[in-house]
Amino acid sequence: MCNHKSIPSRVLSTPSAKAKFELTTIERRDLRPNDVLIDIKFSGICHSDIHSAYDEWGGGIFPMVPGHEIAGVVTAVGGDVTKFAVGDRVGVGCFVDSCGECEYCLIGEEQFCTKGVVQTYNSLDYDGNPTYGGYSQKIVVKEDFVVRIPDNLDLDEASPLLCAGITTYSPLKHWKAGSGKKVAIVGMGGLGHVAIQFAHAMGAEVTVLSRSLSKKEAALSFGADHYFATSDPATFTELAGRFDLILNTVSANLDVDAYLSMLRVDGTLVNVGAPAEQDQYSVFSLIMGRRSIAGSLVGGIRETQEMLDFAAEHGVAPKIEIIRADQVDEAYDRVLRSDVRYRFVIDISTL
Amino acid sequence: MCNHKSIPSRVLSTPSAKAKFELTTIERRDLRPNDVLIDIKFSGICHSDIHSAYDEWGGGIFPMVPGHEIAGVVTAVGGDVTKFAVGDRVGVGCFVDSCGECEYCLIGEEQFCTKGVVQTYNSLDYDGNPTYGGYSQKIVVKEDFVVRIPDNLDLDEASPLLCAGITTYSPLKHWKAGSGKKVAIVGMGGLGHVAIQFAHAMGAEVTVLSRSLSKKEAALSFGADHYFATSDPATFTELAGRFDLILNTVSANLDVDAYLSMLRVDGTLVNVGAPAEQDQYSVFSLIMGRRSIAGSLVGGIRETQEMLDFAAEHGVAPKIEIIRADQVDEAYDRVLRSDVRYRFVIDISTL
Repeated sequence: MCNHKSIPSRVLSTPSAKAKFELTTIERRDLRPNDVLIDIKFSGICHSDIHSAYDEWGGGIFPMVPGHEIAGVVTAVGGDVTKFAVGDRVGVGCFVDSCGECEYCLIGEEQFCTKGVVQTYNSLDYDGNPTYGGYSQKIVVKEDFVVRIPDNLDLDEASPLLCAGITTYSPLKHWKAGSGKKVAIVGMGGLGHVAIQFAHAMGAEVTVLSRSLSKKEAALSFGADHYFATSDPATFTELAGRFDLILNTVSANLDVDAYLSMLRVDGTLVNVGAPAEQDQYSVFSLIMGRRSIAGSLVGGIRETQEMLDFAAEHGVAPKIEIIRADQVDEAYDRVLRSDVRYRFVIDISTL
Repeated sequence: MCNHKSIPSRVLSTPSAKAKFELTTIERRDLRPNDVLIDIKFSGICHSDIHSAYDEWGGGIFPMVPGHEIAGVVTAVGGDVTKFAVGDRVGVGCFVDSCGECEYCLIGEEQFCTKGVVQTYNSLDYDGNPTYGGYSQKIVVKEDFVVRIPDNLDLDEASPLLCAGITTYSPLKHWKAGSGKKVAIVGMGGLGHVAIQFAHAMGAEVTVLSRSLSKKEAALSFGADHYFATSDPATFTELAGRFDLILNTVSANLDVDAYLSMLRVDGTLVNVGAPAEQDQYSVFSLIMGRRSIAGSLVGGIRETQEMLDFAAEHGVAPKIEIIRADQVDEAYDRVLRSDVRYRFVIDISTL
């Protein structure tokens, strides 16, 4: 396998945990037969970028180039590439390789690869080299881990779909949000505001549960049917036994029993964000309605493509704030203050 | 509605929380048109009888006559009864009435009745009268809450199926234990030893997880394919990612994350017993394999009949120790010491 690297790429790199970002240059690998070279146009900022760059989950590989919400254009392809051609508008999400042989890879759920996927950044490729993500002018990716961005999706709005989009679309599909179903979305940040749109487009009756009433108007504009403030204890009484599915997009610890009480019989509380501390629940809350607590992890490549096509067909689009390369440190601070409506996207032309 | 009571029945009654049982006599209600009168032959002792008699869950109604694992013979029927005749071998489980009108009653999942079921004992009937359970010579029950005990099931062995049986059969069915599925049963007490038999009869590959190796031989005799001791940390490593379903029959707090780690992608940990304290789990344990934690509550009347028929067809039978009325206090102590193989059943002829 060729490991030669001769494709320079300007990147936003952080030298150590919590350090400021610097503009530097790395070399991307030469194209292998199944690789495509992508000129990145936009790269979204995910809250997990911050956890990684601050090394809050441990094991951070520095210098680090975060970014797994990548939208760009193909500028070169390896000799065996069949799915993409120069000029194609494409995206890359949270992982860039998997074993391809385990039962989960074989059914297109690569995120559960038993060997472990290669994450787009802060990970070791199977050849041992660290991976560097989307805060970068260029990236080289195996074609099987690249998805096509439909013509009627703008690249800037498409980029957050590669993580925030698939992270919410996948559980909504898996737990069958759709016509006749009552779905609650907890939290209205980068993930939540996309989840509302997907659940609405799937035909579900959508309720937003957010701390205060401040985002009510926006929630309704995204397609929510109802909106309740979780700071009001009456919310939990009024909504007792209401939902088939509660999709929790908030990474803080919840009063799990209170949320479970809003589920119908056979209802599920699905978490897509993980707080650092353990959650607590009473088993009675589960038993009394055959309820479930579950988690969901992004989605496979096939489903990511399906999600993009669905978004294009139904007009699902993140609401974004485009920033320059020199604003990323400030953007991180603003994300931590929840001061973003609703996703930052880096204009890579400013690198 | 006639509330006249003129049917005397000897009962084992406890006058207050943790008091000893006494032999007394109560009057059962006269038969309403839809009622059957049952001569109880055997009544199983469920761990929840102890929680109730000791008032550990609060709200206990005393004097209390526990017992919701009832097997007997019909000795009289009301004028409108169509399903049963004098001489029929019948059973009564955890509840004796429900609203009959809510969505859950209408689909035969009466255990989730939105009005709340009337429990077989320690509950108020819809007419306001306390209910008294199976530690009793006779009971009067609405025919819709009576099930038929197949001819080839002995009444003594059938009685524990009315709670321990349906409590384990229902989640095994609901979460599709069957051919090609790897199912773990946690705990080998009154519920666990029946769960092993049901899961095996459904065609699943059954693993028993019990604290020590002491019950291994018995587990294999009940149909288990594998047996591991949870006191050995190596068990959790060796079984990582193994099971489609873990049915936890133990009411103590578990290291939930350790058990979740033994689930495959999309696997479920189902609890049928509830510890008094909250359980704790890391959301990561759920997300990393789209896993679920769930609970299950007995089963509806239709499914209880299905369970009895299945047990009769497949030779599923609890292993019981028959006791006299004067041994119930001692039996409670022995249950608390886990000194029972595997279910006590009271011979009601000794009352």
